[in-house]
Amino acid sequence: MEIGFIGLGVMGRPMAGHLIDAGHTLFLHRVKEPSRYLVEKGGEAVESPQAVAERSDVIILMVPDTPDVGEALFGEAGVAAGLKPGKLVIDMSSISPVATKDFAGRIEKLGCDYLDAPVSGGEVGAKNASLTIMVGGREEAFERAKPIFAKLGKNITLVGGSGDGQTAKVANQIIVGLTIQAVAEGLIFAKKAGADVVKVRQALMGGLAASRILELHGERMIKRTFDPGFRIKLHRKDLTLAVDAAKALDLMLPNTATTQQLMNAAIAMGEGEKDHSGLILTLEALAGEKS
Amino acid sequence: MEIGFIGLGVMGRPMAGHLIDAGHTLFLHRVKEPSRYLVEKGGEAVESPQAVAERSDVIILMVPDTPDVGEALFGEAGVAAGLKPGKLVIDMSSISPVATKDFAGRIEKLGCDYLDAPVSGGEVGAKNASLTIMVGGREEAFERAKPIFAKLGKNITLVGGSGDGQTAKVANQIIVGLTIQAVAEGLIFAKKAGADVVKVRQALMGGLAASRILELHGERMIKRTFDPGFRIKLHRKDLTLAVDAAKALDLMLPNTATTQQLMNAAIAMGEGEKDHSGLILTLEALAGEKS
Repeated sequence: MEIGFIGLGVMGRPMAGHLIDAGHTLFLHRVKEPSRYLVEKGGEAVESPQAVAERSDVIILMVPDTPDVGEALFGEAGVAAGLKPGKLVIDMSSISPVATKDFAGRIEKLGCDYLDAPVSGGEVGAKNASLTIMVGGREEAFERAKPIFAKLGKNITLVGGSGDGQTAKVANQIIVGLTIQAVAEGLIFAKKAGADVVKVRQALMGGLAASRILELHGERMIKRTFDPGFRIKLHRKDLTLAVDAAKALDLMLPNTATTQQLMNAAIAMGEGEKDHSGLILTLEALAGEKS
Repeated sequence: MEIGFIGLGVMGRPMAGHLIDAGHTLFLHRVKEPSRYLVEKGGEAVESPQAVAERSDVIILMVPDTPDVGEALFGEAGVAAGLKPGKLVIDMSSISPVATKDFAGRIEKLGCDYLDAPVSGGEVGAKNASLTIMVGGREEAFERAKPIFAKLGKNITLVGGSGDGQTAKVANQIIVGLTIQAVAEGLIFAKKAGADVVKVRQALMGGLAASRILELHGERMIKRTFDPGFRIKLHRKDLTLAVDAAKALDLMLPNTATTQQLMNAAIAMGEGEKDHSGLILTLEALAGEKS
């Protein structure tokens, strides 16, 4: 299949690589030094999102934020200018659910299909093709994209119509962020009260407190390994999407709001490039500990 | 073994029953109608905590709150008055870690051993003898109590010295309470944004958001089954212990504080007797939904 790929960052590069390995013809936008190997593998560098769209049946986007998707789709020499009816646009970036509904509507008016398909699992998941993929859009478009998704991830769910993939991703980031904060508050409490946090975590792993976060991020907090993983700065972007969408919905999300604020503090204190398990560092600073 | 049991509530009754079934002689304080069957099974009703302590080698307490433990131990005709050196007191109630250190010290001065051994797993765990037991105290006392704990639970950990069992339990309740709130905020966000929460939860179960809470309490929120389980009123007691202890430690726990406040609101709104998954009802009310 002819597949276009826009956004060759730490996530996009291995994803595009898997698709080349699977025998697809890849048209790549903005090939720079770190993605040069994709051309050596057989991918073709093209000069604009429009050119990507002209030469591909399916166009995948994997860019940082909402304005980047808007620009790639509808900017000068954008994807929209290169589309013909019947093509499929898949946005795998994590962006605003509200903007996504708008983008999908405009692409569909051109006679094309649109899926929002954000992922979780990070760089490791992208490299191992074990991403969780949350998809919004029409069932037929989802069926068409399934063989592509199968090369990139493992847990692939059509959660609803346009925007619902992004909504699921935001819900995921709310739950992950607030669970990290939950584990951080529980463990710092145990430490400050004088208990052995290693044993406390071990006791808690067997009960209702058990979670992937207590397992992975709890261990990182105890072992002080705060290399990303997933950066606090990026997680703040996702909780800011949550807070903005909550405002649009007149929805009060108290712990989401506080956790987003704590991420502001973490970044102000110089921890923004650390793994999100580093949220415990802010609590420690607030408890008067010098790091 | 001669074992005394003080506190024959919904948790204490099945626990005492398991110990009778295991062949121990049980001395029971305050046998009323719901616990009459324990006497028919072979337990002996006695008139005071003092009498329980006089006739038992090991005295177990399973009462609602810190003042109840204080009263049972040091009130009129209390346990302390009936102790002789060498006896073992085990407090399995969930109470203040700070008060526990004081209680343990006073009992140890009488030449006795003291363990704090709060549990998680609720009524179901008590009935199935599958409780998680978090123990604080001396290693020798823990070894002595182990055969008793083995009849009551499965995941049994000595987490440290006196009070550390209670500290671990409070840490557990912080993490459980805040994870429930995390799942509630994630799911109400997905619903209000128009997605199918059943599918969103399914998509999230495969990734980093996975937890026992998303599995059990997430399902209760979706199926609207808010029978306890574990009552919001009781969980508020535990988060109040956390907030009080945090103040004593000059420790800022922002999401614990907010979640405790949200439990105040849930109780004010008439949801206090519901399962703690019912925290989502408060968010729904705050979103203008009539229940």
